[in-house]
Amino acid sequence: MSGFLRQTLRNVTGYVPGEQLDRPGIIKLNTNENPYPPSSKACAALATVSPEMLRRYPNPTARAFREAAAAVHGLSPDHIIATNGGDELLRLIFATFAEAGDRIVSTDPTYSLYPVLAALEGLRFEAHALDNTYNLDPQAFLRFACGEQPNQGPATIALIVSPHAPSGMLFTEAQLTTIAQGFPGLLVVDEAYVDFIAPEIGHNLLPCAQTLPNLILLRSLSKGYGLAGLRFGYGIGHPDLIADMTGLTKDSYNTDVIAQALAEAALRDQGYAMDTWQRVRAEREYLRSELSALGCRVYPSQTNFLLAELPPLANGNSRAATAYAALKQAGILVRYFDTPRLVHALRITLGTPEQNAALLRQLKPLLT
Amino acid sequence: MSGFLRQTLRNVTGYVPGEQLDRPGIIKLNTNENPYPPSSKACAALATVSPEMLRRYPNPTARAFREAAAAVHGLSPDHIIATNGGDELLRLIFATFAEAGDRIVSTDPTYSLYPVLAALEGLRFEAHALDNTYNLDPQAFLRFACGEQPNQGPATIALIVSPHAPSGMLFTEAQLTTIAQGFPGLLVVDEAYVDFIAPEIGHNLLPCAQTLPNLILLRSLSKGYGLAGLRFGYGIGHPDLIADMTGLTKDSYNTDVIAQALAEAALRDQGYAMDTWQRVRAEREYLRSELSALGCRVYPSQTNFLLAELPPLANGNSRAATAYAALKQAGILVRYFDTPRLVHALRITLGTPEQNAALLRQLKPLLT
Repeated sequence: MSGFLRQTLRNVTGYVPGEQLDRPGIIKLNTNENPYPPSSKACAALATVSPEMLRRYPNPTARAFREAAAAVHGLSPDHIIATNGGDELLRLIFATFAEAGDRIVSTDPTYSLYPVLAALEGLRFEAHALDNTYNLDPQAFLRFACGEQPNQGPATIALIVSPHAPSGMLFTEAQLTTIAQGFPGLLVVDEAYVDFIAPEIGHNLLPCAQTLPNLILLRSLSKGYGLAGLRFGYGIGHPDLIADMTGLTKDSYNTDVIAQALAEAALRDQGYAMDTWQRVRAEREYLRSELSALGCRVYPSQTNFLLAELPPLANGNSRAATAYAALKQAGILVRYFDTPRLVHALRITLGTPEQNAALLRQLKPLLT
Repeated sequence: MSGFLRQTLRNVTGYVPGEQLDRPGIIKLNTNENPYPPSSKACAALATVSPEMLRRYPNPTARAFREAAAAVHGLSPDHIIATNGGDELLRLIFATFAEAGDRIVSTDPTYSLYPVLAALEGLRFEAHALDNTYNLDPQAFLRFACGEQPNQGPATIALIVSPHAPSGMLFTEAQLTTIAQGFPGLLVVDEAYVDFIAPEIGHNLLPCAQTLPNLILLRSLSKGYGLAGLRFGYGIGHPDLIADMTGLTKDSYNTDVIAQALAEAALRDQGYAMDTWQRVRAEREYLRSELSALGCRVYPSQTNFLLAELPPLANGNSRAATAYAALKQAGILVRYFDTPRLVHALRITLGTPEQNAALLRQLKPLLT
């Protein structure tokens, strides 16, 4: 820490991203990447990048990407802001719509970046505990978000990850629109995992994002499109909300010309992406039933990961902590959160069938 | 503007980047891109990007790039932070080292993004006027930065663009180290144009960035390396300053895997880059003498642009404003700043010999 770090950051702990081991042969099931590579059309877009495109500044708002996203989603480009990963969108939302000292709310647990970003912006972060099945009572959340204490006004921003991390739980359109309509602040629904929802559920918040003035949806190409290396996300919302960020708070050229081209190609290739989502869903059902058969409590997931609670050890200690370490030793990374609520759980990204089989082989002896 | 925009941003005007016209045949001499394309080795790095690299999260600190930059500059990777363009570094410096309400100082004129970023972070931006040759009196600047008013303490951060924009003036090592050593806050020297300094001057602040605890140098690949489309910059400074930003305030994965690979390849190809800088310098001398012969006052430049003051029209109005519009009509974009100090000036990016000749052809009738 330097002597120049500002006072209000001196007690803030930075966000710690999942481990990125570079050892060959590692099976990475800890950071929710898609197990399948990006569309060959996205990779082919690399060859279309010319020296002249690199030499000149990119389009500041990723116009061509936004047109592609608008076509795919049935929106107008004015509903969309392209960002350097979904994380940049979260930062922009805080920087644009919340004043230092404001109250920001989410669920507990939630994406662990939210409280870090809130602290960096000088915001007060408060979380409403989900029930023990990770479900969300919209009326209870609304009361919490609107302020239950005397003299406590409504929060400025509420953030809900849906499908939820780290549980995998999908909150319904009815739950989320009830909150959006009853909440006077801004509701951010972080849909980083939306692509993995079973299509037969018919979940779709896009019409709400067009009609409700206070709803922003976060989308990411890191998970659904196999492009975590690219850093590309986008926000969907009312054109006035989008314009506030585009015109005022985002860096002038926040996304680069190559990323814009690949993101556009990946998004336009819906057929390929949908095929990878279907394959992930098939493995999700398989791995969930296998882990359940081994005595784990596995929550229903509409994402590309499973939250599995392992039975405690005979002495009451966390078997999950032991399993995490043993798996790592065997070259398999999963995510372990050392918090009271998650002390017995592992969050396991769905891999290829071969990777999932390897995980089960290593886990079995640890569970019997 | 939405009803959700926070109060303190309602009177802030966003940064307006230079025009990026897409009409074919446009000669773009308005945003200081390098007229020459990036190294063929950087372009070749595109072919090394594999689907697997795209699928996984990138190295969060651009390790390989930082090692390359450290080797080129004779530093350690701990002295370096890689950022999504130099603009991200500026934002990080403000967010990390300045508290809302703090006083931030620079020169007048300066890079017009500084006051915008300061306003977004709730900082008070104040500028010390350069003299009428755009030179900087370090003692006068120090007195200003340290606070001349009663009860006014020193500024938290001082920013100096050197070589200076929009004048092209290089401030000397002696001027800048005098300021760094006498200033109790953080000094940021924005070296976006450093690559175009004539090598015989022997200007080099890198040793100071290793020894002084309060100096951060900003570097960019947008200008010197012909990679404006890539969004890649970096900061150089004491490891404690770098760690504050890397560990706390930067987004976890702020630069993407492709940009990291291309930036590394471009930086390692110093031979090619230096050749483009030499060609730009040769044109700088030529264009300066031609514009001077046409009656313009052209400031000595160590950058890849020239600031030329055009004689006013007979009625006293700005000939520069007229010339800007006429050049645009003819398909040549230059930068015109509509501010009292710069009302008679054009900032002209140095193009290829052919582009500069075309500029002169169009300008001549406007100057006689």
